[in-house]
Amino acid sequence: MAYFAGIDIGGTNVEIGILDEKAEILKKTSIKTNSQNGSEETFIRIWNTVKQLAEELKISEREIEAVGMGIPGPVVNNSIVKIAANFSWGNDFPAKELMERISGKSVKVGNDVKVIALGEALFGAAKEYKNSITIPIGTGIAAGIIINGQIVEGSGGAAGELGHIVVNKNGYKCGCGLTGCLETYCSATGIVREGIKRLEKDKNNELYKKINGDLSRLEAKDIFDLAKSGDKFSIGIVDFFCEYMAEGLGMLLNIVNPEIIIFTGGVARAGDVLLDGIKKYLSKYALGMTMENLKISFGELNEEAGIKGAAALVIKK
Amino acid sequence: MAYFAGIDIGGTNVEIGILDEKAEILKKTSIKTNSQNGSEETFIRIWNTVKQLAEELKISEREIEAVGMGIPGPVVNNSIVKIAANFSWGNDFPAKELMERISGKSVKVGNDVKVIALGEALFGAAKEYKNSITIPIGTGIAAGIIINGQIVEGSGGAAGELGHIVVNKNGYKCGCGLTGCLETYCSATGIVREGIKRLEKDKNNELYKKINGDLSRLEAKDIFDLAKSGDKFSIGIVDFFCEYMAEGLGMLLNIVNPEIIIFTGGVARAGDVLLDGIKKYLSKYALGMTMENLKISFGELNEEAGIKGAAALVIKK
Repeated sequence: MAYFAGIDIGGTNVEIGILDEKAEILKKTSIKTNSQNGSEETFIRIWNTVKQLAEELKISEREIEAVGMGIPGPVVNNSIVKIAANFSWGNDFPAKELMERISGKSVKVGNDVKVIALGEALFGAAKEYKNSITIPIGTGIAAGIIINGQIVEGSGGAAGELGHIVVNKNGYKCGCGLTGCLETYCSATGIVREGIKRLEKDKNNELYKKINGDLSRLEAKDIFDLAKSGDKFSIGIVDFFCEYMAEGLGMLLNIVNPEIIIFTGGVARAGDVLLDGIKKYLSKYALGMTMENLKISFGELNEEAGIKGAAALVIKK
Repeated sequence: MAYFAGIDIGGTNVEIGILDEKAEILKKTSIKTNSQNGSEETFIRIWNTVKQLAEELKISEREIEAVGMGIPGPVVNNSIVKIAANFSWGNDFPAKELMERISGKSVKVGNDVKVIALGEALFGAAKEYKNSITIPIGTGIAAGIIINGQIVEGSGGAAGELGHIVVNKNGYKCGCGLTGCLETYCSATGIVREGIKRLEKDKNNELYKKINGDLSRLEAKDIFDLAKSGDKFSIGIVDFFCEYMAEGLGMLLNIVNPEIIIFTGGVARAGDVLLDGIKKYLSKYALGMTMENLKISFGELNEEAGIKGAAALVIKK
């Protein structure tokens, strides 16, 4: 029997699993990324965790055939992370080479969002569809585009950078250097910023009470939760978020015309209040024919999407 | 020897060619579309023209193996034109079926822009690239997206509708029903509208002189020609056009990250004044990494792109 390691490296946590040939997760765990100790130290810790999982499963290290890894940043040739900005591991970071040296296994690396999209496409919410787009919304936002069952990588690994589409040229400066990117509105950070902006002017509302007037405590979840319970002030913020989200989504629909859109990530947990808001505005931004048979739904695999998608990079079909 | 017919049906003209197995055009001609006489009459006239070309080449009708056709509108399964709006031939127009009945040949149908992109990708400016986007700019604007050598069709045939990305939600009403579509700015129609708007306020300029004050005579070419000769008033209009074009292009780059962008169609004849203007603004809308190795150039095949791309639909690889 052949086994595979699926690893999803995030800014805060690394999700690690051991899978069989059918991409069933036999065992998984989560460790802190602690990237500040450098890439080598981090990768050794990750690999030690894989070995520990294998031991618990009574699988010998030898039986692990290959390793698939998802990592933030544009990835070229399933190998090099062009900009590993999240980790200060520099440009052209040779993730595949490093993990192959440490593990002695064959390794393939993919961009984290694309790997999550692959996981949902092969094993989750997009299983029945050839053309899907999976959109994780958390600290940032991006799109994993699957066309005819294949991830769209882009020539430099930079396809799917939905978060950096400019939706307001007079808007906020974005970390990427551009101004008015979708991500400055449609992310946990974005909705919190909008919330704070409104709370600074209006303190007579439920949201202000909920955080005891401490704006630094405000989280996206507070806003969505209150919106769900019918609070008008919070509904206004969610509405603002959803119109921008519909604008970004409309562009994707007009350009790619997928069968299904899947929202995932922390902000997607807001659920129907998010979907209803987006649907309210979508027809303002998307051609009718792109919405005709479109499904919009949520990811089914949560953190397992990254593990399974990463492993799928190396599991033979 | 096997021969193929390549047909590109446009709003005004139909380009028709007979090609060999290597997609070399042996003979070609152009006829008026005259779609108002109905689809059957039009298709019969087209087929008669093919037969006439064959006769001139001393090829028997029997030797024509298959027919490829490009036609405006979203095309599903190389067969049905979902909305044949340009011709008032109704929805779900069975183009393949009709031409097969008339010609007795095997027929494949593709969207005109996608077929042009395929032509440039296989035989023209994008020959060396796996990931290209061809953007014809004329009365309207759209994008033919090629990823890994394959046309991106979209689930309902509606991928690449770049012209209907909303770039100004307070802008002009578009024929598609949306408001502020890119096409309302970045098309021959769009630049003429902007020109007229400015000429109504300012008559003391070269452009006004060139058209003898008859605003109804203004064409896109007048504006681009004067801009090229250094006329400030016309440069201002071209600049306005180019910033919107850069905005649309930036979105495409961030989402698809292609290797090469190819402009073609009537407006592309403006040449470098267009490219220089777009490049001036592109870094405001596209992520740096999507521009790193990007080539931007012009189509090489002109009207032959449609003929060759259409024939490529049916020529065996």
